[in-house]
Amino acid sequence: MKFNNKNVNISPSASIGKNVKIGDNTVIYDNVIIGDDSIICNNCIIGEPLNSYYEYPDTYENPTTVIGKKSLIRSHCIIYAGNVMGNYFSCGHRVTIREFTKFGEHCSIGTLDDIQGYSEFGNYCRLHSNVHIGQSSKLEDFVFVYPYVVFTNDPTPPSNVCIGPIVGAYSQIATGSVLLPGVKIGKHCLVGAGSIVGKNLDDYQLAVGTPAKMIKDVREIKDRETGESHYPWPYRFSRGMPWANMGFDEWIQMNNE
Amino acid sequence: MKFNNKNVNISPSASIGKNVKIGDNTVIYDNVIIGDDSIICNNCIIGEPLNSYYEYPDTYENPTTVIGKKSLIRSHCIIYAGNVMGNYFSCGHRVTIREFTKFGEHCSIGTLDDIQGYSEFGNYCRLHSNVHIGQSSKLEDFVFVYPYVVFTNDPTPPSNVCIGPIVGAYSQIATGSVLLPGVKIGKHCLVGAGSIVGKNLDDYQLAVGTPAKMIKDVREIKDRETGESHYPWPYRFSRGMPWANMGFDEWIQMNNE
Amino acid sequence: MKFNNKNVNISPSASIGKNVKIGDNTVIYDNVIIGDDSIICNNCIIGEPLNSYYEYPDTYENPTTVIGKKSLIRSHCIIYAGNVMGNYFSCGHRVTIREFTKFGEHCSIGTLDDIQGYSEFGNYCRLHSNVHIGQSSKLEDFVFVYPYVVFTNDPTPPSNVCIGPIVGAYSQIATGSVLLPGVKIGKHCLVGAGSIVGKNLDDYQLAVGTPAKMIKDVREIKDRETGESHYPWPYRFSRGMPWANMGFDEWIQMNNE
Repeated sequence: MKFNNKNVNISPSASIGKNVKIGDNTVIYDNVIIGDDSIICNNCIIGEPLNSYYEYPDTYENPTTVIGKKSLIRSHCIIYAGNVMGNYFSCGHRVTIREFTKFGEHCSIGTLDDIQGYSEFGNYCRLHSNVHIGQSSKLEDFVFVYPYVVFTNDPTPPSNVCIGPIVGAYSQIATGSVLLPGVKIGKHCLVGAGSIVGKNLDDYQLAVGTPAKMIKDVREIKDRETGESHYPWPYRFSRGMPWANMGFDEWIQMNNE
Repeated sequence: MKFNNKNVNISPSASIGKNVKIGDNTVIYDNVIIGDDSIICNNCIIGEPLNSYYEYPDTYENPTTVIGKKSLIRSHCIIYAGNVMGNYFSCGHRVTIREFTKFGEHCSIGTLDDIQGYSEFGNYCRLHSNVHIGQSSKLEDFVFVYPYVVFTNDPTPPSNVCIGPIVGAYSQIATGSVLLPGVKIGKHCLVGAGSIVGKNLDDYQLAVGTPAKMIKDVREIKDRETGESHYPWPYRFSRGMPWANMGFDEWIQMNNE
Repeated sequence: MKFNNKNVNISPSASIGKNVKIGDNTVIYDNVIIGDDSIICNNCIIGEPLNSYYEYPDTYENPTTVIGKKSLIRSHCIIYAGNVMGNYFSCGHRVTIREFTKFGEHCSIGTLDDIQGYSEFGNYCRLHSNVHIGQSSKLEDFVFVYPYVVFTNDPTPPSNVCIGPIVGAYSQIATGSVLLPGVKIGKHCLVGAGSIVGKNLDDYQLAVGTPAKMIKDVREIKDRETGESHYPWPYRFSRGMPWANMGFDEWIQMNNE
């Protein structure tokens, strides 16, 4: 139904793995490597040339782009050259990923996300729809980011300074928040919806507001009916996570051994 | 000018009404039904297969998608299978509508809107550009939503709970507001720009702020020069509305009889 | 690599300058004029017909669209008919620009920006990604706008009133701010991230908050280490600016003579 090989354009220098599907109207530019069993849907652009291509088209050489194995790129995505996606990468529609961003394995990127490049993602990061990640951002493993969050990087706009936020493992950044340039969020934090975060957060902090203030330890957020703690969330949420079949404690122990 | 039948791909199982126009580079997948006199512009995807298609391509059957009569879908929209659009549906460019959302008649969806599916819209709803509607949202008739509003649904992210907001008839949700999970907005409310709404609103409430607080009854919002009330808005705005030729009171009476 | 003349569709009434490149899958509609040495990348639509085309396809005539010389339009942009872009216009991916907007020279428009038309931009304006400019907005020269900013125009939604914001020369509108209808921002102002601006700002004001309040004169924002003022920014930032080779004072003098 989807893969009819119509109006597809694959560079001779691209390396396409085994059992890869490529959708109609998709372009794969020079020096793209696609891992086995991956699906690139229709109307995508993989390996989009960098700006210098327009200046020096005759001598330009496209940097290598790597899409890991068993990845799924939905339609209308634009992935620049120079990116490296780990295995099991997936993304929604109309994603834009600028050059030289590195993703770990099992990352999931949402529809309309705009990743400005030169950033770093750990494993199992999840961005929901319409997230903006400015250059030089860093997300550790298992960071989830919700719609309309913006990671900024210029403390005195406009300037030539570029210091992106750093978000610690397992932290959750809720809808519509802005992380100000260079802010450091600890591990297992929760930033509430619509917050403007300008100060660093220690591990396990809940911060909310404009400007965001630390409210309490996330472990104090209890379910009203059961009295159980909602956080750290890996104890109660495991869909798609590596501890899905064993529980978080056992998985942590297994990884420490 | 626009409809040249270039690179169009229509499934044999699609049902295309009379006098339908389909733009260049558009794909109509299996089991799509398009009503008479509708226009599907260029570069659209109608009936996008669900995720299970990628897992089970051989046995997958695309759910039925219905686009009502006299609809206008502008370019680059992606409408998943399983959606039902009432007659006179219209939408801007680059809209994404995930599966199993039901729209009444005369709904208008803006450029870049991202509707996550499994939601319900009444008649004459209008979303402006860049609105995000999370799953399990419900909008009654004549709800208007302005740019960069987000309807959320997960109270303790990440979790498996999904309870979307419910917005009562005639309510207006202004630019950049966030409706928190499960919040219930009454009828004829006005949520001011940039509000974070976590508490339910009774009918006719004006709420503003982060977090949003009820400020006053919308009927108290008067024009500074004329002293007339701006709300309920149907008394002073009728463009495209069913009371355009008779006035709101008469239309209400006609509908109650 | 990018310009293979595949599935390109150019109206016979379009006027294409010398040394213009047009990408694959791009459409150039009637009465588009493209200046010399410009690059229109793949999957773009230039001169998109206005709404009246759908109503009166037989008698519709497309208004003239002008793309200045040495412009660069990246992939997947939709530029409506009736727009005029000055020379050295550039834009990111998936930009939507509705009809009858006028841009000065050297303007730069970011990925996913949504410009609703009937607006006016001076020279050297820069919009970063995902900015929404409502109708009847006005930006003077050297205005920079950061991601997820929204310019609104309806004071009592919904209504038939449309009064956009006016932003003075050199002002900076930081990430996630909303400019309320008709607000006037002076010259050399700085609006902090996440602000809701409902009151006019005099020249050189720093305003922050929801609602935004004037905090101080931007010239009082000093670097903590060097003690130097960050603003007015043209004294310390010149990349791509016309004073890059001479300094701001000399450039101002040159222009006053």
